[in-house]
Amino acid sequence: MRKLFVIGIGAGDPDQVTMQAVKAMRRADAFFVIGKGAEKQELVDVRTAILAEHVEGPHRIFEIADPPRERTPADYTGVVEDWHERRAALLEAAFDEVEGTGAILVWGDPALYDSTLRMVERVLARGRVSFDYEVIPGVTSVAALAAGHRMVLHRIGEPVHVTTGRRLREEGLGAGSTVVMLDGECSFTRVPGDNLHIWWGAYLGMPDEVLIEGNLRAVEDQIVARRADLRAEKGWIMDVYLLRSV
Amino acid sequence: MRKLFVIGIGAGDPDQVTMQAVKAMRRADAFFVIGKGAEKQELVDVRTAILAEHVEGPHRIFEIADPPRERTPADYTGVVEDWHERRAALLEAAFDEVEGTGAILVWGDPALYDSTLRMVERVLARGRVSFDYEVIPGVTSVAALAAGHRMVLHRIGEPVHVTTGRRLREEGLGAGSTVVMLDGECSFTRVPGDNLHIWWGAYLGMPDEVLIEGNLRAVEDQIVARRADLRAEKGWIMDVYLLRSV
Repeated sequence: MRKLFVIGIGAGDPDQVTMQAVKAMRRADAFFVIGKGAEKQELVDVRTAILAEHVEGPHRIFEIADPPRERTPADYTGVVEDWHERRAALLEAAFDEVEGTGAILVWGDPALYDSTLRMVERVLARGRVSFDYEVIPGVTSVAALAAGHRMVLHRIGEPVHVTTGRRLREEGLGAGSTVVMLDGECSFTRVPGDNLHIWWGAYLGMPDEVLIEGNLRAVEDQIVARRADLRAEKGWIMDVYLLRSV
Repeated sequence: MRKLFVIGIGAGDPDQVTMQAVKAMRRADAFFVIGKGAEKQELVDVRTAILAEHVEGPHRIFEIADPPRERTPADYTGVVEDWHERRAALLEAAFDEVEGTGAILVWGDPALYDSTLRMVERVLARGRVSFDYEVIPGVTSVAALAAGHRMVLHRIGEPVHVTTGRRLREEGLGAGSTVVMLDGECSFTRVPGDNLHIWWGAYLGMPDEVLIEGNLRAVEDQIVARRADLRAEKGWIMDVYLLRSV
């Protein structure tokens, strides 16, 4: 039975990989690196650097280009489903060329707003290649955000609501503290209220990490401007933030 | 300026420490190991094993015994506050004996239902010792739970509500998926509904990891019984679970 590891590699700092992840990487004969278009080449490069640092033996790297995807569709779930099916077909074709053990490296942790596990399950469901798979957990960008700000995510005994920018716009804040991921639209500017605090971070764990925190109304314009500048400068941005009333 | 590292070491597997955590540990001259009473000696032992494996140089270890604490007080926040103040005094006294860099190892990640950072801030606020501190993020038990079950925490684009057993009893489920931590009372048995699925895990990442999943009504008695057996056998238990309607 062939084996596939799905490995969380942390939020960006190559040192944020765990020993467990390194050991799994060393067992892999082939790596499937799922690219996200030209503008995210730096992300692919960081993964390649992690492999270069931690994996000595010979190994093959398959770069799998993401198929194109409509970014703000009306039928969000349907479009994402179709995109997953096309990605699954690409992974299936790559894995079909590999003897032995494969590995997929995932930013952060595979359990949080990442589609790799759904893609792997889809490949298995298609029934053309068979393999066992194992998940290696990683440090999330949420933990990296909190570490950067040296904060606890919640007040004592309170809950944490983890959501997307889209849901924040539609549903507002959750109870306790709200962590927002996948927000390309600075949705925090649409949350009403004068007593909210925001802890924002971009490129967490990387040398160019940026952290901003303060009263939401006082710093929101600064975050919007800084985010636009950084994105223009680097060609891509990954950011996450936490909101809580004070 | 003296330095203190607060280091997340992952959910239990000594290999779940990151390279970043190992590097910080190697810079520390003294470790403050905050014990949780005799029944949790095994937790202290695992931390000691991690130090033995990853820290070669000479270092001092201060075991700080947790002061006693009322477990189910009426005034929950007040009792926890007082307990933090007494712990802060113990850490302050230990750090006062150390020249150079100190480190505190924390299960999982310091940002999620862990009181170490509040204790550190309290020591600084007391003003008797001064130091800079840095947080090293770790793999949470939530990520370890998801990895064990090879699952994504949420359905596509949906939110995750992270809460405590106490809050689950008082407030019920959140929107999307609900992760429950700090639940000594099997509060899942009090959540009504026939269409809920539970993914439960104990001693995650350790050799004696136990995973149970299924329809909540079908497996809840099994989890309650297994949890009681395991707790009696080992003297302590750490568990976490996710609930979602299907």
